[in-house]
Amino acid sequence: MSVPAHSAPRPAGSPSVVDLNADLGEGVGDDAAMVRLVSSANVACGFHAGTPLLLRRTCEQAVAAGVRIGAQVSYPDREGFGRRFMEVEPDDLIADVLFQIGALSAIARSVGGTVDYVKPHGALYNAIVHHRGQAQAVVSAVAEAGLPLMSLPGSVAIDLARTAGIPVLTEAFADRAYTPAGTLVPRTEAGAELTDSAAVARRVVGLVTSGHITAVDGSQIAVRADSICLHGDTPGAVGHARAVREALAGAGISVRAR
Amino acid sequence: MSVPAHSAPRPAGSPSVVDLNADLGEGVGDDAAMVRLVSSANVACGFHAGTPLLLRRTCEQAVAAGVRIGAQVSYPDREGFGRRFMEVEPDDLIADVLFQIGALSAIARSVGGTVDYVKPHGALYNAIVHHRGQAQAVVSAVAEAGLPLMSLPGSVAIDLARTAGIPVLTEAFADRAYTPAGTLVPRTEAGAELTDSAAVARRVVGLVTSGHITAVDGSQIAVRADSICLHGDTPGAVGHARAVREALAGAGISVRAR
Amino acid sequence: MSVPAHSAPRPAGSPSVVDLNADLGEGVGDDAAMVRLVSSANVACGFHAGTPLLLRRTCEQAVAAGVRIGAQVSYPDREGFGRRFMEVEPDDLIADVLFQIGALSAIARSVGGTVDYVKPHGALYNAIVHHRGQAQAVVSAVAEAGLPLMSLPGSVAIDLARTAGIPVLTEAFADRAYTPAGTLVPRTEAGAELTDSAAVARRVVGLVTSGHITAVDGSQIAVRADSICLHGDTPGAVGHARAVREALAGAGISVRAR
Amino acid sequence: MSVPAHSAPRPAGSPSVVDLNADLGEGVGDDAAMVRLVSSANVACGFHAGTPLLLRRTCEQAVAAGVRIGAQVSYPDREGFGRRFMEVEPDDLIADVLFQIGALSAIARSVGGTVDYVKPHGALYNAIVHHRGQAQAVVSAVAEAGLPLMSLPGSVAIDLARTAGIPVLTEAFADRAYTPAGTLVPRTEAGAELTDSAAVARRVVGLVTSGHITAVDGSQIAVRADSICLHGDTPGAVGHARAVREALAGAGISVRAR
Repeated sequence: MSVPAHSAPRPAGSPSVVDLNADLGEGVGDDAAMVRLVSSANVACGFHAGTPLLLRRTCEQAVAAGVRIGAQVSYPDREGFGRRFMEVEPDDLIADVLFQIGALSAIARSVGGTVDYVKPHGALYNAIVHHRGQAQAVVSAVAEAGLPLMSLPGSVAIDLARTAGIPVLTEAFADRAYTPAGTLVPRTEAGAELTDSAAVARRVVGLVTSGHITAVDGSQIAVRADSICLHGDTPGAVGHARAVREALAGAGISVRAR
Repeated sequence: MSVPAHSAPRPAGSPSVVDLNADLGEGVGDDAAMVRLVSSANVACGFHAGTPLLLRRTCEQAVAAGVRIGAQVSYPDREGFGRRFMEVEPDDLIADVLFQIGALSAIARSVGGTVDYVKPHGALYNAIVHHRGQAQAVVSAVAEAGLPLMSLPGSVAIDLARTAGIPVLTEAFADRAYTPAGTLVPRTEAGAELTDSAAVARRVVGLVTSGHITAVDGSQIAVRADSICLHGDTPGAVGHARAVREALAGAGISVRAR
Repeated sequence: MSVPAHSAPRPAGSPSVVDLNADLGEGVGDDAAMVRLVSSANVACGFHAGTPLLLRRTCEQAVAAGVRIGAQVSYPDREGFGRRFMEVEPDDLIADVLFQIGALSAIARSVGGTVDYVKPHGALYNAIVHHRGQAQAVVSAVAEAGLPLMSLPGSVAIDLARTAGIPVLTEAFADRAYTPAGTLVPRTEAGAELTDSAAVARRVVGLVTSGHITAVDGSQIAVRADSICLHGDTPGAVGHARAVREALAGAGISVRAR
Repeated sequence: MSVPAHSAPRPAGSPSVVDLNADLGEGVGDDAAMVRLVSSANVACGFHAGTPLLLRRTCEQAVAAGVRIGAQVSYPDREGFGRRFMEVEPDDLIADVLFQIGALSAIARSVGGTVDYVKPHGALYNAIVHHRGQAQAVVSAVAEAGLPLMSLPGSVAIDLARTAGIPVLTEAFADRAYTPAGTLVPRTEAGAELTDSAAVARRVVGLVTSGHITAVDGSQIAVRADSICLHGDTPGAVGHARAVREALAGAGISVRAR
C-alpha cells in the first residue's frame, strides 16, 4: 500500500533526493530484493556475520544495482550476531575496525566497487552513541581509512568526528519509534517498531519533505538525516521498502546516495 | 657461531644483496628480535593466527625496522594454525585471500606501511605447489590485488602466475633439507630441519653466492630464489637468523628486500 | 500429496516401525515443524553451525516432542558449514568429536534429555565412508563416549565400528538418488535429489516394506537402514516430511526411534 | 628462595592441608611444570583459549599428576582471551557455560578424569563478583551440571550459590595485592601483583596458618579461602609455585584438593 502522490506533494524547496540504506551480506533476509530498493548497502564484514564469499557476492549485487557500499563493522561476536556490548579497549577497536574496512574494501574493489562509508553494527552502533572511548576509537579508525562515518544524529561519535573534521552521515530509522527527545524507543518496549508498511512509508516521505518525525507522544521532532535506514532482516522488510519506494516516487523524491 | 668472513668471500659477479623473510604476527616466537634480522615480514592475517591489534603492532615494528610487509594468507583454521589442508572451493578461496590481503593492507597503511607481496601459509602454501584449482584461485586473488606471489620455485602457482604475467617471488628455505629433486624433505622425516646455526648460515651464503644448495644425498642442486625464508617459530630461530646475518655480512652480502 | 493407503499395504512380516532422522539446530530450515515429523534429531554441536542457546532450545523442542537426540558432529568449519574436507589428524579429530558430544550432552541433560547417538555432518560424514584414519578416529571417539554411530551402510566407519563391537545405526536417504552400486549420486549431478514429495514418500514406504530402493537405472538395490534421513534444510523439506508421515501412516507403519 | 621452615611453624590447630589451583590448557605458560605443583587445574574450555586436543593433553597431564580438574569457563572471546566484559544475556550465558562444562567433561572422562568444579575465567570471573544477572546465570548452569562453583569470597555469585544450596569453593590469590576492604587491587595500579617469590610464599603460608592476608596499607584482613590461586601465565609463575610448595612443606602443610 502506498501513500497517494497527491497526499504528500513535495513542498517547494524541500529535498528531491534521499538516500536509503539497509544491512546486507548477513546471510539473513532477502538481499537480492533489498539491494534493488536501496541506494546504500551496509555490507557485513565477517565479524558478526558473513563469509568472504558472501561479502563478495553482496558487493557484486551492489555494484550491479548501482548501490553505494558501506562497511558494516562490528565487535568480533558471531555467536551473538554483534548484538552484545563488549568492553573492547580502544587500541583493539581501532585495529578491529581497520581490519574490517580493509577486508571489505579489497573484496569490493575486486568486483569493481569501493567502500564509501562506515556504519557500525548492532551493539557497537549503540555503544558509540554514548561511550566516549569506543566512539573515539571508531572515529580514529574511519579517519585513518579516510571514510565518512554513518551514525545516529547527536551521538558522541558524530560529535567527535565533526570536531576532528571527519565527514559524517547521520541517519534516521524508517521503522523505529522515536521518543520526544529524539532518541529511539528501546526494542524491549512495546511499539518500538513500526510494522505497518503504509505508516513506514508516510514517515519517510514526511521526514524528507518536512525534516520532522512524529514521536510516540504525538509531538513533532526535528531530525536531520543524510540517510534513512530500512531494516533488512525484519519480517516485513521488503514490503516496507517497496512501500517506501512507491511513496517517495509518488512524492517526486528520487532515491540516490549522496 | 658464524662463518668467518675469509672462508666465504663473495665471488666476483655474484649477487651482493639478498632478501630474508620470516613469519611474524602469529603470537609465537620473538617477533621483536626477528623483525630486526629480516628484510621481509610475512605478517599473519587473522585466519590462522593473530588479532587485528597484534597485526597492527607487527606492522608498526616492520615499518620501524624498514622491513617489507607481506600478507601471510591462510585457510580459515585457527584451531589447526592453518596447517591442515582444506578442500576449499576456488570461489571461496579467492574471496578468503582477498579478504585477508585487504584487512592487512588497511592495518599496514594505518601505520605508514604497505602490503607488498602475498605469501600463503602452512597447508595452503603446500597445496598450491600441486593443487591446480587452489593455485589458480590464489593467483587470481593476488592478481586482483595487484601484488606479487611468493611461493616455492617449481610450484603450480608460480607457473600459473608467470603464464598470467603476474609477478612472482620464489624462495628457498634456510633450515630445511632438500631432496636431490629440489623439493623439501617432509618434516615427518628425520633430518628434515637443519638445527645447527652455522650450517644454516653456510647454506644461505652458499646459495646466494653460488645459486646452489647441497641436497641430502650430497649432490648440488640449483635453486633460484628471490628470497630466503628463515623460520620464526622454531626454537633456534633467532640464533639461526643472527648467524645468517653475520655470515652474510662477512661475505659482503647485504640484506634488503627486492 | 500422499500415497493412498491401499496402494502400499504393509506386507505381512515387514517392519511396522521406522526411525526418521533430520538435522536440527543449524539455524536454517523450519525446526519447529520438522521436530514434530521425525523420531530422531541430529542436533548441531557448534562446530559447523548453532550457538549453545540454539542447541539448548533445539534439545528442548526434541524433548517436548519425544524425539531422540543425536550429536551431529563436524569439522571445525563454520565458514563452510562443515561441508569442506579437512585433513585433520586422528588425535585432533578424536578430541574434536568428544568435545562436541560432551557439549551437547550437557546441554541435553539440562533440559531433561540425553544424547543417544552420534551422526557426523557434511564433509566429515562423507570422509568416514572411505578415509580410514578419520573413520577410526570417529569410531574411537564414539566408543569412548559409549554411543552408537550413525553412518552410511558399507562405510569404512561402520565396518570399523562393527569390528570393534561398537553399536551402529545405518541410514538411507529419503530424497537422494542411488547408483546401482548402492552409493549416493553426487549432488553435482542432475537428478541427485528427489524433489517430488510423493516420490520421496513412495520410496520411504517401499524401503521399509521391501528393504529395497529403485536406483537411477531402474534396478532394485537392497538397502539395510536402521533410520531414514529426511533433509531438513532443502526448500521442500517440511513438505517431504509430511508426505512421508502420511504415507507411512497409510501403510500402517509407525515412526519411532529404535 | 624459600621461607625457612622454622620461621613459619604451623600453629597447633591450623589447617594442615591447602588446595592450590592454576590455569592450564591455555597454550601459554609451562603447563608441564605447573601441573606438578598444584592440586587443582583450571582447564580452559575452548571459549577463550585451547583446542580440544590441547584440553585432552592437559587433562591427561592432570590425571597423571593426580590433580583435580576444573572447567575454566569463559565468554566466547578468543580474540580477547576472555578478558573483555560482554553483555551476554542470562539464557545465552547458561547455555555457554553448560556447553563448556560438558565439552571438558567428555574430554576428561576419555582420559580417566572428571570435572570436579567450575571456575569462570577472566572478565566473566570479574563480572559475577557484582553483576547479578550473569552471576545468577553461572550459578544456574553449575547447579544444572551438579558441580561446585569456585569464585571470589564475597562475590554475588557465591552469595547466590549459597542461598541456592549449591556448593562453593572460595579462593584467595597468592600474587595479588589486597585492599583493606578485602578486594583485589586492580591490575592497572602499581603494586597490584607481587613479583617476589619469597613474598608470595610467605603470604600463602601466612594465609593458611592464620587465615589473614596483609593488605596494601599494612592492615591484616581475614580471608576465607578453600583454594589458593597461583597464576600460571605470569613470567615468574613456576618460580612462585616452587617457592610456595617449599614454604608449605617447611611449614608442615600438604597440598591437596579438598
